[in-house]
Amino acid sequence: MWDVAEELGAMLVFAEHRYYGESLPFGQDSYSDAKHLNYLTSEQALADFSVLIRELKRTVLGAQKSPVIAIGGSYGGMLSAWLRMKYPNVVVGALAASAPIWQFPDMVPCGDFYKIVTQDFARSGLNCDVNIRRSWKAIDNITATDDGLQWLSGEFSLCSPLKKTDLDGFKAWLQETWVNLAMVDYPYEANFLQPLPRWPIQVVCKHLGFDPSVVSDYQLLGGISEAARVYYNYTGNCPCLNTSSTATGNLGFIGWYYQACTEMVMPLCTDGVQDMFEPQDWNFQAFSDECHSLFGVRPRPDWADTVYGGLDIASHSNIIFSNGGLDPWSSGGVTRNISDSLVAIVIPDGAHHLDLRYNNEYDPHTVLSARVLEVKYFKLWITQARKLQIPG
Amino acid sequence: MWDVAEELGAMLVFAEHRYYGESLPFGQDSYSDAKHLNYLTSEQALADFSVLIRELKRTVLGAQKSPVIAIGGSYGGMLSAWLRMKYPNVVVGALAASAPIWQFPDMVPCGDFYKIVTQDFARSGLNCDVNIRRSWKAIDNITATDDGLQWLSGEFSLCSPLKKTDLDGFKAWLQETWVNLAMVDYPYEANFLQPLPRWPIQVVCKHLGFDPSVVSDYQLLGGISEAARVYYNYTGNCPCLNTSSTATGNLGFIGWYYQACTEMVMPLCTDGVQDMFEPQDWNFQAFSDECHSLFGVRPRPDWADTVYGGLDIASHSNIIFSNGGLDPWSSGGVTRNISDSLVAIVIPDGAHHLDLRYNNEYDPHTVLSARVLEVKYFKLWITQARKLQIPG
Repeated sequence: MWDVAEELGAMLVFAEHRYYGESLPFGQDSYSDAKHLNYLTSEQALADFSVLIRELKRTVLGAQKSPVIAIGGSYGGMLSAWLRMKYPNVVVGALAASAPIWQFPDMVPCGDFYKIVTQDFARSGLNCDVNIRRSWKAIDNITATDDGLQWLSGEFSLCSPLKKTDLDGFKAWLQETWVNLAMVDYPYEANFLQPLPRWPIQVVCKHLGFDPSVVSDYQLLGGISEAARVYYNYTGNCPCLNTSSTATGNLGFIGWYYQACTEMVMPLCTDGVQDMFEPQDWNFQAFSDECHSLFGVRPRPDWADTVYGGLDIASHSNIIFSNGGLDPWSSGGVTRNISDSLVAIVIPDGAHHLDLRYNNEYDPHTVLSARVLEVKYFKLWITQARKLQIPG
Repeated sequence: MWDVAEELGAMLVFAEHRYYGESLPFGQDSYSDAKHLNYLTSEQALADFSVLIRELKRTVLGAQKSPVIAIGGSYGGMLSAWLRMKYPNVVVGALAASAPIWQFPDMVPCGDFYKIVTQDFARSGLNCDVNIRRSWKAIDNITATDDGLQWLSGEFSLCSPLKKTDLDGFKAWLQETWVNLAMVDYPYEANFLQPLPRWPIQVVCKHLGFDPSVVSDYQLLGGISEAARVYYNYTGNCPCLNTSSTATGNLGFIGWYYQACTEMVMPLCTDGVQDMFEPQDWNFQAFSDECHSLFGVRPRPDWADTVYGGLDIASHSNIIFSNGGLDPWSSGGVTRNISDSLVAIVIPDGAHHLDLRYNNEYDPHTVLSARVLEVKYFKLWITQARKLQIPG
């Protein structure tokens, strides 16, 4: 964005979503209960952005007639696409990078997400996915005894030793670690969720190359622990691993969770066959109950489909949906062209919104082409907008 | 709509807007204060309609894949257009009849509305607009004395005799009477706001044909009183005229006024030259103060432009904007084609959403053509929708 803004003579505006960062509408009370959380919705965010953009155009010298393009990645990409859909008068187009606008009930299979995670590991090293798939049973085997629990805690240098009751949480933490690695499997050193080496999953998989037919549970989990450290301790500064954190907390985890518990219901599931995780069905009722106990709200699973059109978005225009082939969120992304002006760009070697990052010498050529194409569309939209401009 | 529904094999659904009719979200308390009125917004109404349509498609046998077309007149026409703009996944197109979607600040001149009212009277009888323009001063002249006040009250058969302090209200009531007549100047007997003869303004103007250079104030106001009775007492059953009512109360006046005081800020003004009314500028501050005293809220004059696009609606599709040339609300309507699928139909001899009414033997041919064209577009949208239908 920075390079491109310079090329286009554009102003970049980073708008903070209400309830995230410092944008707390009720200060410290913003998250205190359902009543205070009530204004945390994507619709409100879109309205905020629209009002902000119009206010900037009104007050920033020279901006009055400047066409505006929405750019975002992940949920920000969803908002960008939706901003164009709902406020085409405010933004002339949108780049929705790694935006899973179809990860809602009955739009895509719930298992695709973890399949992609698994494929990332399978392609990054011999036996890598196979050994992770086996690790869950190995954890069960070893933690059947107190000695095993203690061994595992030591092997992972856990900040708090594992208890029997922690095992589900421990597995969930590992699972989320693999997911996060899939999201940030970038071709160069980067620090998005965590500081990581280039192609981190390849580095992870170096620790998981065992022949699965001969490896012991202890060896296997030793490898898993080394693999986890790639994610949590690449800098070598981390004295112990904390299974209650996967480093996404700083991205507004609670806010996002509340949104998932209201509008953003995204079914995910695993079967242990097409993916490397323990089988788990999508259980809406359990999810709803959890939402109710956490926030006092219950999710509306159909609402995203109603308000944002679901699969039926063909009447909109000027949106680029870019997705990385390595990115599990591409499971819910738009990966085929819908029309001449609703275009999909797939970056086979890309992880989560790689295209939004600075150019880098290690960038695969596919992301370079994607960026070029994106800018071509930006220029087209700007030209169109200048032609259509309403007088006055 | 009824004829056309039969022709198309369609189901007609009349959805009641929240806070109107029986759809009171807080029962008798719905209008009690700003807190209870907080959910009375056009956005909520659009969301309600979308949820309702999806629910009907889910539950009505055979409706699942039926394309839906939004149809409405006046504010209902605005909602129809906006429903297509905001929920193109829910409705394949919209007929927005007499929908003043541009009657918001800085979109159209505030004086056009009353200019059209005036033109309707000017074309309906010699001197008709001239004598109405003169009547305001005649009222001032005559009511300068108590005898005059009494005379005027008698002449109009007012239910409550006029006091000096009632004069602004009396004039406002007369002004609104002329406006309402312009809205319902239908070519046949009808009962929309009131039971009325065919071409009611022609009937009104028969009482106002005096030569303005010789008529006395008494004669003039006598004619005005006869003219007003055309509107209020066509049936002959009205024992006295009530200046606190203009027969729009039953259309949800308070609800609409609250909406005008929040989102639907529609500037109107008169100059007494291009229109036949006393000059009155649009005074936002006075309006805002009135809103605050009535409802405890202040209007957001820019919001409609932000949320519904104002003049910049070209990226939307499949909306017919029909307007009557006699209808003052056509001042804020879309009366020129915006694109191949955002089309304007102007019915020169039409008043407020005449096209939505049953066919009638007195219909001018222009409204018959309009109805034919509207149905042509309906069929086109339905065909398009069936081709584009998302599988599943």
